[in-house]
Amino acid sequence: MSIIGENTSMRLIRALMLFATSLCFAQDSDDFKPATSNALNAQYPRVDSNSRVQIRFKAPDASKVRVNFWSGPKADMEKQADGFWTFTTPPIAPGPHYYTVIVDGAEVSDPGSTAYFGGSKWASAVEVPEAGATYYLPQDVPQGQVREVWYHSKVTGTWRRALVYTPPAYDTQPTVRYPVLYLQHGGGEDESGWTRQGKANFILDNLIASGKAKPMIIVMANGYARRAGQPAPDLAGKPFNSPEMRKAIKDMMSAFEDDMTQALIPFIDSTFRTVSDRDHRAMAGLSMGGMQTFHVTFDHLELFSYLGGFSGAANVFAMGNGKPDMTTAFNGEMANPNAFARRVHLLWIGVGTDEPERMKQGIEQLHASLDEAKVQHVFYESPGTSHEWQTWRRDLKDFAPRLFQPSRQQSLSAQRK
Amino acid sequence: MSIIGENTSMRLIRALMLFATSLCFAQDSDDFKPATSNALNAQYPRVDSNSRVQIRFKAPDASKVRVNFWSGPKADMEKQADGFWTFTTPPIAPGPHYYTVIVDGAEVSDPGSTAYFGGSKWASAVEVPEAGATYYLPQDVPQGQVREVWYHSKVTGTWRRALVYTPPAYDTQPTVRYPVLYLQHGGGEDESGWTRQGKANFILDNLIASGKAKPMIIVMANGYARRAGQPAPDLAGKPFNSPEMRKAIKDMMSAFEDDMTQALIPFIDSTFRTVSDRDHRAMAGLSMGGMQTFHVTFDHLELFSYLGGFSGAANVFAMGNGKPDMTTAFNGEMANPNAFARRVHLLWIGVGTDEPERMKQGIEQLHASLDEAKVQHVFYESPGTSHEWQTWRRDLKDFAPRLFQPSRQQSLSAQRK
Repeated sequence: MSIIGENTSMRLIRALMLFATSLCFAQDSDDFKPATSNALNAQYPRVDSNSRVQIRFKAPDASKVRVNFWSGPKADMEKQADGFWTFTTPPIAPGPHYYTVIVDGAEVSDPGSTAYFGGSKWASAVEVPEAGATYYLPQDVPQGQVREVWYHSKVTGTWRRALVYTPPAYDTQPTVRYPVLYLQHGGGEDESGWTRQGKANFILDNLIASGKAKPMIIVMANGYARRAGQPAPDLAGKPFNSPEMRKAIKDMMSAFEDDMTQALIPFIDSTFRTVSDRDHRAMAGLSMGGMQTFHVTFDHLELFSYLGGFSGAANVFAMGNGKPDMTTAFNGEMANPNAFARRVHLLWIGVGTDEPERMKQGIEQLHASLDEAKVQHVFYESPGTSHEWQTWRRDLKDFAPRLFQPSRQQSLSAQRK
Repeated sequence: MSIIGENTSMRLIRALMLFATSLCFAQDSDDFKPATSNALNAQYPRVDSNSRVQIRFKAPDASKVRVNFWSGPKADMEKQADGFWTFTTPPIAPGPHYYTVIVDGAEVSDPGSTAYFGGSKWASAVEVPEAGATYYLPQDVPQGQVREVWYHSKVTGTWRRALVYTPPAYDTQPTVRYPVLYLQHGGGEDESGWTRQGKANFILDNLIASGKAKPMIIVMANGYARRAGQPAPDLAGKPFNSPEMRKAIKDMMSAFEDDMTQALIPFIDSTFRTVSDRDHRAMAGLSMGGMQTFHVTFDHLELFSYLGGFSGAANVFAMGNGKPDMTTAFNGEMANPNAFARRVHLLWIGVGTDEPERMKQGIEQLHASLDEAKVQHVFYESPGTSHEWQTWRRDLKDFAPRLFQPSRQQSLSAQRK
């Protein structure tokens, strides 16, 4: 091909690119809309129908502004003449995405976004709609309530807040008693996560209305606990797997376990119309909450019979780096898989296909080990989502219909891997 | 006095100042504690026993960082060698104080603080304890619940969220019906303000436990409303008193009034065990919410008989700049003060003594006009507080015990001004 030919090709390609770009812009500029997760009347962030997100941040005197999607792009924003900095992401996965903005070294939230508690601070998030999905949105169906309750815990010596979902008919049928799902948030989040980010109340309203899930109470507790009188551990500079960090996590897990079993569950059973036996009590959690679920329930199978680990399950320290030994892991409860299947009605684990390798491998490893040991369980993969809330919304959508329905349980067991 | 004398005096004064300062620092450094309003485990902001607040903000590459207390100091922060910027306030009033941090022109929230919705964004706030005051803190008394409910409004064509406080015995005495207080947030806030900033649930728990207030339901609704199909007004660059702004506010007030009376109240009365008559229905609100209270209730005295305006009452546009004409203001309902006193069981207005002059004068003017027209009412002044939440917590503490207690009402009327 001659030089002239090359130039002609290049010109054509450039023209096509320009044309395509102009088409894109024409489409985009009509198509970007304020995210449903925005603060009151905020015009940015915006999302288009291709799941691209535009961030806009006012910092007229800053010399550098970066956007930091925790499971997505981390990039310099571009300064505009009006003092605003802007950035547009490529298409990203559906669901709410945490992000922060870094202004001359200060990591802050975006005033345009609703604040969500994540990463141990009030962070920003942008909700990217999932095409065709309405299961986590409010629909014209009977609505449950999310109740903020406070209980005094003798374990921690403090007043503790929990959020409690009561199903639609709870107040109108005042003699009916309900099974209970204890549902835990992840590390760095709090008890508000499952309704504010996760939309657990709408997911259950819709599942109950369609007859897919049994009406149930959901208790969302604060996952951090420290025993009364115990000083806060000093973990400054301590690496993740250090003895100090291990001890701090162990102490927290143990205090949480006691708070849950000695303070929270008795409080819930005396405050709400629950069926207070193990056949009507489930526990699940995401990430750190999944770890807590396995920790608490295997210590207390007299209290729970349905277990779920969403992107988090076994105690990573107990498992080590290799395959768990099923004859001793989980207090040895799975050593006899038939006895375990009779005792535990549901063992459910899930992970997003786009989660970081370490997370994915951990859950896949557990799945393989359970298979190998012939332990009945459900393994669910959320397609195209990472260690983020859309994974956990889908987890709940799959998990909740399998709870408290023994007849259903049988028919579902065929799907178990 | 000679030059030498002056120098000696100056030296003495300086030495005393240094000594005093060192005493202060010695005391302070032991005394500052993380605020109860902080995000999980955050060590700053801190408050000392003199009600001084220390702010600390990480911005290693910023060239200027300011702190902006909305009703308090606005000041440059000082850069420290470690990349943190710090500022210590003089002693400030008790209660939660909204603030933001301005980093090279970007106004953001402080990651150390819990995020509170105010000023139309998720802002920071620091809680300064009030010495000896426990009325707004959780106590070892029976606890009510705060319920998040969603209702579909035909007025706005949207799903709307409200928070509902139910008193302690609501679930255990399932045949008892309760009176209802509708309690509105201020401009730029939302329905979460009265529990998150205001601690209305704890205030009522404590008042009910001590027998001071009757058990009641409190409904906290979202104060923004736009009629279905009505486009958002374009108010960019429009001054506060412009015709466009007046119309936008009028439209919002009118849509809110219809949403409240046609959608919210019927929803509440069909969802909760209310006594659904005017003798058992109150409305109050702070700032914009006070304005909405007077707007809605005077249009619907067939629905309400107890009214409260906390740092906000009459429609500022209707009142103009001078004294209202009581024969025509408020739909002329007060033209006959005796008839009004028979019809309205409580008219309550309050203001903080340290509020901005314009706010204070407006309420004081209304108080004087009511006195002059011989309209029975209660006028309450919160000592030493501004247009802030401690004023409104105190308002609620004074207001709630006067509700739904006809016999009490009589004995209280002596205190009315």
